[in-house]
Amino acid sequence: MILVNGHMADTVSVLDRGLAYGDGVFRTLRTHSGQPLWWTDHYAKLAADCAALALDCPDEAELHSEVCRVAEAEQGVVKIMLTRGIGARGYALPPRRAATCIVLSARLPDYAQAAAADAIVARWCTLRLAQQPRLAGIKHLNRLENVLARAEWDDPAIFEGLLCDDGGVVVSGVMSNLFWIGHGELFTPDLSACGVAGVARTRLLRAATRLGIPTHIGRYPPAAILAADEVMICNSVIGLRRVARLDDVTWPVAGWTENLKIALYENVD
Amino acid sequence: MILVNGHMADTVSVLDRGLAYGDGVFRTLRTHSGQPLWWTDHYAKLAADCAALALDCPDEAELHSEVCRVAEAEQGVVKIMLTRGIGARGYALPPRRAATCIVLSARLPDYAQAAAADAIVARWCTLRLAQQPRLAGIKHLNRLENVLARAEWDDPAIFEGLLCDDGGVVVSGVMSNLFWIGHGELFTPDLSACGVAGVARTRLLRAATRLGIPTHIGRYPPAAILAADEVMICNSVIGLRRVARLDDVTWPVAGWTENLKIALYENVD
Repeated sequence: MILVNGHMADTVSVLDRGLAYGDGVFRTLRTHSGQPLWWTDHYAKLAADCAALALDCPDEAELHSEVCRVAEAEQGVVKIMLTRGIGARGYALPPRRAATCIVLSARLPDYAQAAAADAIVARWCTLRLAQQPRLAGIKHLNRLENVLARAEWDDPAIFEGLLCDDGGVVVSGVMSNLFWIGHGELFTPDLSACGVAGVARTRLLRAATRLGIPTHIGRYPPAAILAADEVMICNSVIGLRRVARLDDVTWPVAGWTENLKIALYENVD
Repeated sequence: MILVNGHMADTVSVLDRGLAYGDGVFRTLRTHSGQPLWWTDHYAKLAADCAALALDCPDEAELHSEVCRVAEAEQGVVKIMLTRGIGARGYALPPRRAATCIVLSARLPDYAQAAAADAIVARWCTLRLAQQPRLAGIKHLNRLENVLARAEWDDPAIFEGLLCDDGGVVVSGVMSNLFWIGHGELFTPDLSACGVAGVARTRLLRAATRLGIPTHIGRYPPAAILAADEVMICNSVIGLRRVARLDDVTWPVAGWTENLKIALYENVD
């Protein structure tokens, strides 16, 4: 089911700035029994991303009700897209008005099913992410870098590609955030210059703190991952997955991912 | 008038990758008496941009006929948007298929009318363009940097904002390419790391060569513009305009823009 500004529809105007410029933001979240998982975090992130781009964010209760409505029609995943709506031609912002709000449900992809392998295979991408602090961390609709990076492989055995920025520093996966354990502590890249700061990442950092695991956010070279005891990726749809192999490097199970996964899904805010 | 894949329509699917990821390219061109201006250059650039993103480019004759059809309905400007069409969720490329092709006509904006002032006022933007060689030069649908830069001013007297990259090197205007004259020679920024290499830019470089004016494409600091004898901006809709003022710096008429403008519109390829 698809709602566009609260009404059943499956199209948007060709004049929408979401299409013309990628002028908007989005969220992808899991649903269970017709309810969105991690809703408080998702709405907070949506509101923060809207604020960063001076977009109007829909009212939380209204949006929650639309999410539940589409989730009831189709279990699994809900995607929310918010754009700046229709404007005159040209980059100048139109007068402040409600954004176009698209809420749609979809079946959980096979790779996100509970039966899917807990451990995944990854590779390094050759594409380097550009550094744009004004857009870093935001889940906006300008995602050509991700499209180009994902096009680097078509081997279905490879689940994810890892990305560095143009300074050679590790950033994330193409569709996930990246974590690793070294000497019993949890590490993840700083995302102040590029990448998307996902809700699963935020929740995993909080979960680690609850477990008493020290966390570090910083700029790390690829060698830091290769030297890790366990490597993992996360997003709101796949949850947390252990990286069993990265190109030619393999890691045995060290147990960290399993423990963190349980904490990630604990119903706490 | 709007054509979507050859048929009159004014919407696209909410699942279109042009909306989801900005996964597509576009062109904006002038029309006159129902015909597109500079068509050969525009189609060549569209085909090159498609090739860079592995998009299928429509057949030239078919696209030309659609452009003429919408141009007849409404004189002034035609915009072409090509996207990778509808795909499954996720960044992976869908099986190769025809892109979504949107062709729409619009009235010539007031600022592009012949009666509009030939000389314009510009300002420096504070936003710095990120350097992404894989996307540089392409007129793709990921234009949030342009949106953010254009949002830096709302004084209608200011026509354009000039942009540097994150290395402090001059790149372009928000919606135009940038040129200047120094010691009788023509300069324009290199666009191999960011910016859009527009058709008007290509044509102006050719026009200058025909006039015997030496041309230089390179990496220049803002000071190079301030020291210029004449500064100008161009795109396919506004043509060529002299920059009379840039923040607090003004330039008197030196005559270069007028001569180059005549050459720019000469009907030669």
